[in-house]
Amino acid sequence: MKNETICQRVEQLREWMHRQGIQAFITPSTDPHSGEYVPNHWHSREWISGFNGSAGTAVVTLDHAALWTDNRYFLAAAEQLDGTPFTLQKLGLEGTPTIAQWLSQKYREGAEKWKVGIDPTCFTVAEAEQLEKELGTSFFELCTCPDPYAEIWTDRPPIPQNPVELHPLEYAGESVRSKIGRILAEAVKQQAGGVVISMLDEVAWTLNLRGTDVDYNPVFVSYLVIGGNGTTLYINKEKLTDEVSAYLKENDIDVRPYEQIFNDLKRAEVPLMIQPDKTNLQVRQSLDFPVLSTCPVTGMKIMKNETERRGYHSAMLKDGIAMVKWMKWALEAIPQGGQTELSLSRRLYEFRAEQPLFRGDSFETIMGYGPHAAIVHYEPSAETDIPVEPHGLLLCDSGGQYLDGTTDITRTLPCGPLTPEERRDYTLVLRGWIRLGSAVFPRGTYGSQLDCLAREPMWRYGMNYLHGTGHGVGQYLCVHEGPHQFRMNYMPWPLVPDMTITDEPGIYIAGSHGVRHENTMLVVDAHLRDCEGSEGLTFGPYYQFEQLTLCPILTSPIVREMLQPEEAEWFNQYQQTVYEKLAPHLDDEHRQWLHDATLPL
Amino acid sequence: MKNETICQRVEQLREWMHRQGIQAFITPSTDPHSGEYVPNHWHSREWISGFNGSAGTAVVTLDHAALWTDNRYFLAAAEQLDGTPFTLQKLGLEGTPTIAQWLSQKYREGAEKWKVGIDPTCFTVAEAEQLEKELGTSFFELCTCPDPYAEIWTDRPPIPQNPVELHPLEYAGESVRSKIGRILAEAVKQQAGGVVISMLDEVAWTLNLRGTDVDYNPVFVSYLVIGGNGTTLYINKEKLTDEVSAYLKENDIDVRPYEQIFNDLKRAEVPLMIQPDKTNLQVRQSLDFPVLSTCPVTGMKIMKNETERRGYHSAMLKDGIAMVKWMKWALEAIPQGGQTELSLSRRLYEFRAEQPLFRGDSFETIMGYGPHAAIVHYEPSAETDIPVEPHGLLLCDSGGQYLDGTTDITRTLPCGPLTPEERRDYTLVLRGWIRLGSAVFPRGTYGSQLDCLAREPMWRYGMNYLHGTGHGVGQYLCVHEGPHQFRMNYMPWPLVPDMTITDEPGIYIAGSHGVRHENTMLVVDAHLRDCEGSEGLTFGPYYQFEQLTLCPILTSPIVREMLQPEEAEWFNQYQQTVYEKLAPHLDDEHRQWLHDATLPL
Repeated sequence: MKNETICQRVEQLREWMHRQGIQAFITPSTDPHSGEYVPNHWHSREWISGFNGSAGTAVVTLDHAALWTDNRYFLAAAEQLDGTPFTLQKLGLEGTPTIAQWLSQKYREGAEKWKVGIDPTCFTVAEAEQLEKELGTSFFELCTCPDPYAEIWTDRPPIPQNPVELHPLEYAGESVRSKIGRILAEAVKQQAGGVVISMLDEVAWTLNLRGTDVDYNPVFVSYLVIGGNGTTLYINKEKLTDEVSAYLKENDIDVRPYEQIFNDLKRAEVPLMIQPDKTNLQVRQSLDFPVLSTCPVTGMKIMKNETERRGYHSAMLKDGIAMVKWMKWALEAIPQGGQTELSLSRRLYEFRAEQPLFRGDSFETIMGYGPHAAIVHYEPSAETDIPVEPHGLLLCDSGGQYLDGTTDITRTLPCGPLTPEERRDYTLVLRGWIRLGSAVFPRGTYGSQLDCLAREPMWRYGMNYLHGTGHGVGQYLCVHEGPHQFRMNYMPWPLVPDMTITDEPGIYIAGSHGVRHENTMLVVDAHLRDCEGSEGLTFGPYYQFEQLTLCPILTSPIVREMLQPEEAEWFNQYQQTVYEKLAPHLDDEHRQWLHDATLPL
Repeated sequence: MKNETICQRVEQLREWMHRQGIQAFITPSTDPHSGEYVPNHWHSREWISGFNGSAGTAVVTLDHAALWTDNRYFLAAAEQLDGTPFTLQKLGLEGTPTIAQWLSQKYREGAEKWKVGIDPTCFTVAEAEQLEKELGTSFFELCTCPDPYAEIWTDRPPIPQNPVELHPLEYAGESVRSKIGRILAEAVKQQAGGVVISMLDEVAWTLNLRGTDVDYNPVFVSYLVIGGNGTTLYINKEKLTDEVSAYLKENDIDVRPYEQIFNDLKRAEVPLMIQPDKTNLQVRQSLDFPVLSTCPVTGMKIMKNETERRGYHSAMLKDGIAMVKWMKWALEAIPQGGQTELSLSRRLYEFRAEQPLFRGDSFETIMGYGPHAAIVHYEPSAETDIPVEPHGLLLCDSGGQYLDGTTDITRTLPCGPLTPEERRDYTLVLRGWIRLGSAVFPRGTYGSQLDCLAREPMWRYGMNYLHGTGHGVGQYLCVHEGPHQFRMNYMPWPLVPDMTITDEPGIYIAGSHGVRHENTMLVVDAHLRDCEGSEGLTFGPYYQFEQLTLCPILTSPIVREMLQPEEAEWFNQYQQTVYEKLAPHLDDEHRQWLHDATLPL
């Protein structure tokens, strides 16, 4: 059946294209700030195509239209694009053309060169360069246009107007003046006079401010320019309370309208640094002499200062208490019947919400039961929700935002009797989790050099997982924080003390079950065997991980004889630490439960 | 005291430079074929400077001279350069200038631009580009010159004249016609019409010929050009026996004088492939339209065919027998006194020489006793040789060239009582050796992604080693064969079945002791647990290593309780395999010794 709404919108876009003199227009799913979550204002790709997945690109020519998305969304996209002018292009499948290849197919030889339009605020410098390279210059010309949706999307939601709030020094641990000083010093080292910061978490970190403009990440829509004539925050002024305005003034930070940045950058008198894979093309085009480099904030933000580390310890304690209460409750509630993925998820939220300084989830809870646990990005919804029965495994990957820290934890719960395969896989993931979590490594080691430690035990059984093994975690900021990570892919950013990183291997058997264990960890100096300190005998210092997450891993599914003594010893010690740290904060009933849950293997 | 000989040679070079109109000349330690071993004819750097180490670069200006070498040679170079015009430049130390920086210091501002001369046959394309980049164009101009040593080194040894011999199909397993066909097909894929092969092992592999022109590697000095007008071997004709000449003719391979290649390449009518980091600059400059790419032989040579694999099995059996005989003999001889590193080394050679098809060592034997074992590249000489006493550890890294295969093995022998540290380190290296040697991994995995498996056990004790963990091994060719390897450094060449690779972690405690265990292995399909075949449940196929080397690791130094059950089980199985394969070929006395040496832990 024809989707009249979408057809009409595409026609509106084509009229606009006609007026602009362009033959194709590309609408990505990103916003000007390259974040993981995009405010509704920039959901243009959803508006034009009807497809609401988090990743996808719509391309419209005067006669054709297509939408590219990945395998997470093949089913949903096929359904949602039905009756629209868009054909579905399945990324990663053989035979699927790239956007450039598809445009070449549509372009008729002999026609005039096509102008392919993009909104330069929604493409990073790197993405635009890549696209231009793929299109070539023989038949296509990549053109930057004004945003068509400003004109044709009449009931478009505004840019979020939510108020900004202070993130006090007692949680941030470093003043905005100190941070700006360090950023400028770093810019000067790179032969620049300042920096344009467009990533929202980097703006928030620098200014010790937080917001509520996007889901799960406490950030606010803005740009920050440091250098030359001082520091300027580009933001919709309605978002600033008197308190925040006063704070900004006190710190000599000018405030200018959000949209004003591009004009101001054109008059920049010193070279400003921008990071090409994080900064939008319009920023780049506004600058006469940009310095292309990694933003200095990237490397500073991931090094947690003493106050932030204290905050993590506090947040993890609270999160551990909430998780213990929930696990005890869930293991009792499931056998009584009537629980579903969503009901369990809601109850977990309630336990977290009881904790001081809780501000919400740090991402949408993954609560997958049985076969749903094998779908890596599964998030239950009213349509997919299923009862959780008293057998098999329940995978719960969740996290909280607390003013003093962000948490990310996965536990896999045995809901009742398990198959031998479920127990084997639970144990194999645990072995990898222990191997990586207990690793000691010399200065200079990258996460990509350690990644195989988590995979190797399951490889022997012919199993693997197609996601990274870990990522950095922000401090009351984004739960995914780079650039350091555990991945097979090469990422040469060494792990050093004061960085956070998760350890989260998994096994996913389609149609059957899924297992993942995840802790958030902190890189610290190593306690070496047979040695004083972390220097070691040769080529030190050495580092290891402190387990920030405080929550037991349930032991009943473990196949004891598969664990090596060294692994069991380390695991028992972790469980013991969890008990010691959490027990003083629990009532008798929960303490007893935790005691039993953390008995040595 | 002044070294008159060297001073005089430097003056001769300067006179030549004057005549050529150049202000500096760089003499590297390489030859036109970028091999590991360089024939005496190209020992120009030694001749001009007096320094005889395997790595070093001499730079002479009209007024100054300096020589760069690495920390292996700091002591020897300081001694050998004493009384010469050369100042020693210690690579890797802070404050040591690069060649370009040093030249900039010597260059006087305001002078005319300096011409810096190099012999283009002794620099690869990549090296010359790098040097040119470092020198810049403001004050220097990199110039290619004729080889000055052809003129001033009057008693220069000739290019080796040793005869070439056939490497029969019963060892090679693939005819030269078939290899050339595959190489040409690969060249065509890369838009080239043919290939220039300048690496001597690649010429030897392609033609199924061998030689004796350099130490340890059975290769012969030549170039091979495939494509366009057929296949041409550029070689000194005196090296060819009638048999070899007939063989070449039979296979339609033209023979032309070695020096003729450059003139011939100038007339090449099709684009020829060259590999920039392996091919000398003169080849590059002779070609009008080269295709720069990895040489197709590289990827073919490392995939061992069935005949070659059979050859390895045969060679490893013989090498294992020789090693067992030597180990038994050494453990009995050392307590009786009178043995030195060199005497033990000679005896090992004799045991190998008893074996059929033995052609010599595959590299200079490393036989390091006590503190000498902590020097990674230690090779005993008359000056350094020390008695081996009945205590402590003896590290022996050696290998044989057999017509049917090349071996590379390291064993560390307990000569008597050991300290707890020696036993601990022996065991830690063993754990890493087992971890890597027993690994299972999915298709697409690089050696650099597995390297940490061998290091992780010793990292916990603050120990590490600054060399790679493994390299490919040629088939009656070079013992070091790339590009795949186990290294921390990124090297994206996946390990796939039929490649050889060594597994050789180590611990080196300066002034005290050293341990290394090394086997040569073959990548094979995995035997997965709980699974049929190597496909695995997810994302297979999976691969593992077959241990080609057949020789026990002595168990008396092992600290049993440090080994995990999984490791001990795998180790016992390996030792058992060694016994089963070698026992039928040993006399009663040796069989009994091997039986006892391979008893389970």
